[in-house]
Amino acid sequence: MAQKPSIPKGTRDFSPAEMARRNYIFDTIRNVFRLYGFQPIETPAMENLSTLLGKYGEEGDKLLFRILNSGDFLSGIPADIQGFSHSTDLAGYISEKGLRYDLTVPFARFVVQHRNDIIFPFKRYQIQPVWRADRPQKGRYREFYQCDVDVIGSDSLLNEAELVQIIDDVFQRLNIRTVIKINNRKVLAGISEIIGQTDRLTDITVAIDKMEKVGLDKVTEELMAKGISSDAIGRLKPILLLEGSTEDKLKRLEAVLSYSETGLKGVAELRTLFRYIESFGLSESSELDLTLARGLNYYTGAIFEVKALDENIGSICGGGRYDDLTGIFGMPGVSGVGVSFGAERIYDVLNNLDLFPSDSLESPRALFVNFGPDEESYILPLLSLMRKRGINVEIYPEADKMKKQLNYANRKNIPFVVLAGEAEIAAHMVTVKNMANGEQKMVSAEELTKVLSI
Amino acid sequence: MAQKPSIPKGTRDFSPAEMARRNYIFDTIRNVFRLYGFQPIETPAMENLSTLLGKYGEEGDKLLFRILNSGDFLSGIPADIQGFSHSTDLAGYISEKGLRYDLTVPFARFVVQHRNDIIFPFKRYQIQPVWRADRPQKGRYREFYQCDVDVIGSDSLLNEAELVQIIDDVFQRLNIRTVIKINNRKVLAGISEIIGQTDRLTDITVAIDKMEKVGLDKVTEELMAKGISSDAIGRLKPILLLEGSTEDKLKRLEAVLSYSETGLKGVAELRTLFRYIESFGLSESSELDLTLARGLNYYTGAIFEVKALDENIGSICGGGRYDDLTGIFGMPGVSGVGVSFGAERIYDVLNNLDLFPSDSLESPRALFVNFGPDEESYILPLLSLMRKRGINVEIYPEADKMKKQLNYANRKNIPFVVLAGEAEIAAHMVTVKNMANGEQKMVSAEELTKVLSI
Repeated sequence: MAQKPSIPKGTRDFSPAEMARRNYIFDTIRNVFRLYGFQPIETPAMENLSTLLGKYGEEGDKLLFRILNSGDFLSGIPADIQGFSHSTDLAGYISEKGLRYDLTVPFARFVVQHRNDIIFPFKRYQIQPVWRADRPQKGRYREFYQCDVDVIGSDSLLNEAELVQIIDDVFQRLNIRTVIKINNRKVLAGISEIIGQTDRLTDITVAIDKMEKVGLDKVTEELMAKGISSDAIGRLKPILLLEGSTEDKLKRLEAVLSYSETGLKGVAELRTLFRYIESFGLSESSELDLTLARGLNYYTGAIFEVKALDENIGSICGGGRYDDLTGIFGMPGVSGVGVSFGAERIYDVLNNLDLFPSDSLESPRALFVNFGPDEESYILPLLSLMRKRGINVEIYPEADKMKKQLNYANRKNIPFVVLAGEAEIAAHMVTVKNMANGEQKMVSAEELTKVLSI
Repeated sequence: MAQKPSIPKGTRDFSPAEMARRNYIFDTIRNVFRLYGFQPIETPAMENLSTLLGKYGEEGDKLLFRILNSGDFLSGIPADIQGFSHSTDLAGYISEKGLRYDLTVPFARFVVQHRNDIIFPFKRYQIQPVWRADRPQKGRYREFYQCDVDVIGSDSLLNEAELVQIIDDVFQRLNIRTVIKINNRKVLAGISEIIGQTDRLTDITVAIDKMEKVGLDKVTEELMAKGISSDAIGRLKPILLLEGSTEDKLKRLEAVLSYSETGLKGVAELRTLFRYIESFGLSESSELDLTLARGLNYYTGAIFEVKALDENIGSICGGGRYDDLTGIFGMPGVSGVGVSFGAERIYDVLNNLDLFPSDSLESPRALFVNFGPDEESYILPLLSLMRKRGINVEIYPEADKMKKQLNYANRKNIPFVVLAGEAEIAAHMVTVKNMANGEQKMVSAEELTKVLSI
């Protein structure tokens, strides 16, 4: 009769302790987004499949979670289709909705749908879960959160610069040492152009993108396998291997790209961006990386990727400038730029490096011990008083053994317990005990407020 | 080519302005939950259908959103089932997961699944969306949030009492005048018993539950239609119509229920609960309502329902004590009590009564006007300084016309704009303008901090 309950593979429950840690990350990110004038939106978990399909490549389409139509979903199938044997054919008839796969496509859909109500430049953030029917494995889930921040409807490079500030600010607050790698898709386009491979930009960026992981030799192999001439590869190599200061690299690039209008525009954009970065005092934490490519096709300008210095876990934040994301929904020519923070990987970094703060906002400050009806009547007004003063406190709901109640406080990481027995009641006081060091003293309500206030 | 984008019916996008209002509600509720020592959990949007099916009645099963199995979902169907014509038959083969229908069943599943890690009594809150394939209509959505707070693993009536405090505290903070209606399922069971209809408790509660909506005559009709004898109905009526103070009602009930052990237990529980309520000074806002029944079968003790006094919108919060919610998942005998806040209805009440606060935490405090590169260089350090001081500010990203920038600030509800032209730069000052009254003055960075701080 009784079933052993479980949850779908790749999904997770979050306990209070995990929630406290996750909220620490989300609150930090959210507070920084707000500090820079960004405002939240939310979109539905379900989108029409017409919104989602074809936006993430063939592989992405397969990874969409589809919702079965409600009611008699078979009734919509034409008679001559009965007896179908292909899941993908059938799916088109019995499912019209899918779960959100990322926050970017719903955001583009949102902008187009609400274009008349939106105040441009539109600075929005969005922190919501997304779902992918990926094979679950360590660190990869079927339900996970994304934290996206974008400005849409402004070409100004000040937006890119502020995003770098935001990235720096978030990771400073989280105490994660990072490097922010920056490149520009126009520079990559210019390189393809001057090595005579303008139409092979995608192949080239996909290969270059693996540089850090597999090294130059393997990248060369891949480029050759893709039919890029060894002459072109020969001209590409020295560019990818450019050394020196950012300004040195930009000068060399400028010379190399002097015949590519697009390439020169990219260099100029990078120069402006790095000038902002210098004025913000962030040169130390930012780096021009010409091998950074980012796989996604929609980027057209600056691209960003953030690595943790003390943990080898891949990128923990990334993004870039896109010039036509809303075009697929019929609103061309609107430029935007944004980054996405990878909450799950950030969690792992904080966890592995033991960087989570020890005390959590989610734990009450004190447990009031329950000795029975008389003592309870004595301390309930004090409990209410602490709450009126904004201090999170709880009372153990029954007069269980003292040991059990203290154990409860301990396991819940509650830093103080408050006790009132005969002596305390006679003295109009309570005893407050520090659970960390065991110290205890009799105090008045006023003194208790001070002890429990953070 | 370009599709006009839309979202599935019954779902909603939330703009920054709506998010600010929604977050005002969620933050208020969450802060009160924390104040009383409750801690958050989250569960996945998807649950196994084995967890969900059969828990919400036949109607509920139909309203579940089912997820199509990934990959070649038809491959799992036995050959002799091919050619099926019944959607419900097929659904069993091609779908194993469904979207969360409420937070109660996933919570019960969570408690059983993590029983060895949970610290009992377990005080948890959960604020997450749920999905129902209901026919959408005004105020009813297919995706909506629930805000649940429960204590599980404690029989103490202090838990009920604290929930009443929580309800009162939440609605006080939201400035919504309410009445908290309270009853006890044991009393209803006792009444069924003494009118000789012990086995008809469900029919009786379902009928009584409509008392407020349809009146006594219609309830009598329904009871007769269900085959309850007119003799029994005759004995039921005076109980439902009991008048007077809570203590008067309880005394009369005690007399009426003197032969029902369960009934008397219910009266004793109510008496204890109302004693707590009196000691908390909440007698004014709470009321014993013997016609309150609440449809859900799993309640076994206290039941609660909250009505707004100034808006006729049905219940905006409700809940009760359940003695065996985890039994369905193989963990019997664990008692719990909880209430759920209806965020969507609370939104409507606040909106209709114009009770939302005018300024929102989501709007930046100031827009820095952009006059071009030189002025920008002058004010960017000041912008950073404000942010270092924790003040949410933004700069318009391009040197657009002044009017356009002020219009942007106005539409985004930004209370101040900050300007720096030649005069300000020469004086090492900025001009701050109050957008509400048009007043403006030249100030130093320190003065600006004061103006922008809340």
